[in-house]
Amino acid sequence: MTGGAALGGVGPFGGTTISTLAARIRSRETSSLEITEVALAAAHKYGPMLNCFVTIDDHGATQAAAVADEELAAGLDRGPLHGIPVGIKDVIATNGLLTTMGSRHFSDHVPTADADVVTALRSAGAVILAKTQTHEFAYGPTSDRSASGPARNPHRLGLMTGGSSGGSAAAVAAGLLPLALGTDTGGSTRVPAALCGTLGLRPTGQSLSSRGVFPLSPTLDVVGPLAATAEDIAIAWRSLSPSGGLFPAAEGTEDPRGLPAAIHAGELRYALVTCALTERASADSADAVRIAAAALTRDRAPVPTVFLPEIDACADPYRVIQSAEAYALHHERVERAPELFGSEVLERLHEASRVAGWEYVLALADKERLRARVLVRLRTADVLLMPTVPVSAPAIDQRSFPPETLWNSPREALLSMTSAWSVLGFPALSVPVPGTGDGLPRSVQVIAKPDQEEQLFIVAAALEESFTAL
Amino acid sequence: MTGGAALGGVGPFGGTTISTLAARIRSRETSSLEITEVALAAAHKYGPMLNCFVTIDDHGATQAAAVADEELAAGLDRGPLHGIPVGIKDVIATNGLLTTMGSRHFSDHVPTADADVVTALRSAGAVILAKTQTHEFAYGPTSDRSASGPARNPHRLGLMTGGSSGGSAAAVAAGLLPLALGTDTGGSTRVPAALCGTLGLRPTGQSLSSRGVFPLSPTLDVVGPLAATAEDIAIAWRSLSPSGGLFPAAEGTEDPRGLPAAIHAGELRYALVTCALTERASADSADAVRIAAAALTRDRAPVPTVFLPEIDACADPYRVIQSAEAYALHHERVERAPELFGSEVLERLHEASRVAGWEYVLALADKERLRARVLVRLRTADVLLMPTVPVSAPAIDQRSFPPETLWNSPREALLSMTSAWSVLGFPALSVPVPGTGDGLPRSVQVIAKPDQEEQLFIVAAALEESFTAL
Repeated sequence: MTGGAALGGVGPFGGTTISTLAARIRSRETSSLEITEVALAAAHKYGPMLNCFVTIDDHGATQAAAVADEELAAGLDRGPLHGIPVGIKDVIATNGLLTTMGSRHFSDHVPTADADVVTALRSAGAVILAKTQTHEFAYGPTSDRSASGPARNPHRLGLMTGGSSGGSAAAVAAGLLPLALGTDTGGSTRVPAALCGTLGLRPTGQSLSSRGVFPLSPTLDVVGPLAATAEDIAIAWRSLSPSGGLFPAAEGTEDPRGLPAAIHAGELRYALVTCALTERASADSADAVRIAAAALTRDRAPVPTVFLPEIDACADPYRVIQSAEAYALHHERVERAPELFGSEVLERLHEASRVAGWEYVLALADKERLRARVLVRLRTADVLLMPTVPVSAPAIDQRSFPPETLWNSPREALLSMTSAWSVLGFPALSVPVPGTGDGLPRSVQVIAKPDQEEQLFIVAAALEESFTAL
Repeated sequence: MTGGAALGGVGPFGGTTISTLAARIRSRETSSLEITEVALAAAHKYGPMLNCFVTIDDHGATQAAAVADEELAAGLDRGPLHGIPVGIKDVIATNGLLTTMGSRHFSDHVPTADADVVTALRSAGAVILAKTQTHEFAYGPTSDRSASGPARNPHRLGLMTGGSSGGSAAAVAAGLLPLALGTDTGGSTRVPAALCGTLGLRPTGQSLSSRGVFPLSPTLDVVGPLAATAEDIAIAWRSLSPSGGLFPAAEGTEDPRGLPAAIHAGELRYALVTCALTERASADSADAVRIAAAALTRDRAPVPTVFLPEIDACADPYRVIQSAEAYALHHERVERAPELFGSEVLERLHEASRVAGWEYVLALADKERLRARVLVRLRTADVLLMPTVPVSAPAIDQRSFPPETLWNSPREALLSMTSAWSVLGFPALSVPVPGTGDGLPRSVQVIAKPDQEEQLFIVAAALEESFTAL
């Protein structure tokens, strides 16, 4: 974990993994209720400074924790998340619990059913402790535009968390929660994870249920977890994914259900992505990728590069698809009550309304064409490395860069390295990389082929191990 | 067949079915070569009057017919289409044979591969005799705008054939060919079939391969046959469909492969469609539907009506989806060489370019919603009846109606009853109905649920039988 933070890891979960907590609950060293009460106290103490929570559910969380303890006492063990407090991004429906979408259109909205991903976490025994701040309607990568105000970066409170899952990233990075759900359309789990110094996963496109999740761009949206370790991300993903329980075998062991043994990080074939966009990454961002590559290969041959011009070519289809779908979702609200939108999101929606139908049709075709091309180029690579973001966290409300900067705006910069993988449908994970000149987190984006999330977890675990040994 | 026609049924195939021809070939009463030579002579004689052919392939057809005869002599029998001359709409690629799309953009275009549907017909032994006239890029239901000039209705040469498969309908209605392929986006097989007095099938959406078929609106396009009898349509569809060979059992017999015996027309549950659009059908069109319903039920209870407001609601999604997809296909040609378009199609493309991306996204969602609602409403009906077209054939170049008419234009009228079933993805068949005040063909549109084409053939055969007995 990157150090020197104002509130980085200050909470009760800083430096503690879900499996450690799970073991301590099962040894009666602690209980879900005790953990939950500590978490609630920390959430009330630090949450307001970070503005990472929209709602803290003291009553629901303590009730759920008590039930979790009773179940364990009765011999019902739901697995590693049993009794563990988690946060849920405020675009994800929680039954009976305020869910605002970060918007004044939904300031009083209380869903009457859980989203499927919330049901999955509850079935795994998780305790829903809080709803986390989101950029208004998840429509922005900065999390400083929201009906509940800007989320603040635990490392420096005047800086952005990145977004749109800013509250989830801040809460995990501050150690207030071991796990929080986000959503990712163009980078909304990966970008705030990178800026706050946690892990953030975008699973394979369309691989998790979106029922009960307020959409931004349905063909690109996917729910994903943010957590502090590779193992915690893997636990979360396996609980969320319909296929997630298929590959839990430890490295080197035979899976009891006859599946092949899990592979080692050393058996994977890596490549560094190069394209016009990666040339524009800051020296610090590029360094982080090189450090990660060196950590993964050690004394073996250096990681080859793979030139992927398709990454650059994805920017336009991303804009077109996301704009057309977002305006389709919001057009009635824009016509009926434009005053309830923040001015920036409203302006972006007006711009989105101007995308033509034929452009959208072509963008969907481009998406398939680019995906096919990238799959062909990656015949000899399993896992790719590139920056998650090309800059460190900008200041809250910052909307431009100094003239010499290569990016027009923080929004453009923050999404530049992540949105292509959304278009292509590949899973990607932002992993922290230690050390930096300016005292802020840096990261590497690890990318696998569709449905190969387990490779991401293996690589992230290998990176953690290597960085801990430094 | 509706009588009083200038060239209706004048050709060698007027009143002759494919199975009759097939039997005569197998009894050596005639040969494929003989039939083909007669067909070529008739095509050269009457084709120019109807302007129904773009290319007549004397050499290819006589060669294919000779091969067909040799194969039969050698004991290789490809089934009922073996040795039968057919026409192919000029938007469907034929290897080595000019394929113009009805456009000056493709005036010299000779494909180097067959479309999959052409391959299917050749594999069934069919003889490709001619390419049939199409509305320019299949982008219109009138067939009087084409690089090769207007197709002419065999019943009165000054009237439209309807379109866009106008050449196929004219050739079949004139008896110049027993079978021709068309394509149907919003009604392009059914409308010209209705105006020319043949049968025209739109199969279930996406059920036939579109490879090698020049698209108009890929999510709505489907290839379909035009022929003079229900049996001929069934033979064609079974040859084209990957699943088409599964249900060839004659009525009342057990299928040798263990499938249930084919049902009788009397066992199907019928309903008459009513909605705002059907109220606007001409008295003659409405009469034709009533006559068909009476023929199907005879002494049993009258056919109930089913109110389907979704049919009216499909008009807007049809326009939006078709426009966005058509402009996506043509935008480069519009930018590069607008002068090669006909002015009417170019104007429609400019209009199509103005559909917004968000409208297209909503239209795709509407399509799914409307389809689900119609399926629910049709719990107690198998087969629906409604007009194919609400008017009889307008004059070539006619672009308006007298002031008292309920329709703004021939285009609006001609597509009004058919395009909804394209949006909904249901198969539909236009079937001629005898008798009319103005001496022009009239018809009924028979609609089944997705993948129930065989029910359409059973109903059409029952109608033919009933009408012949009149």
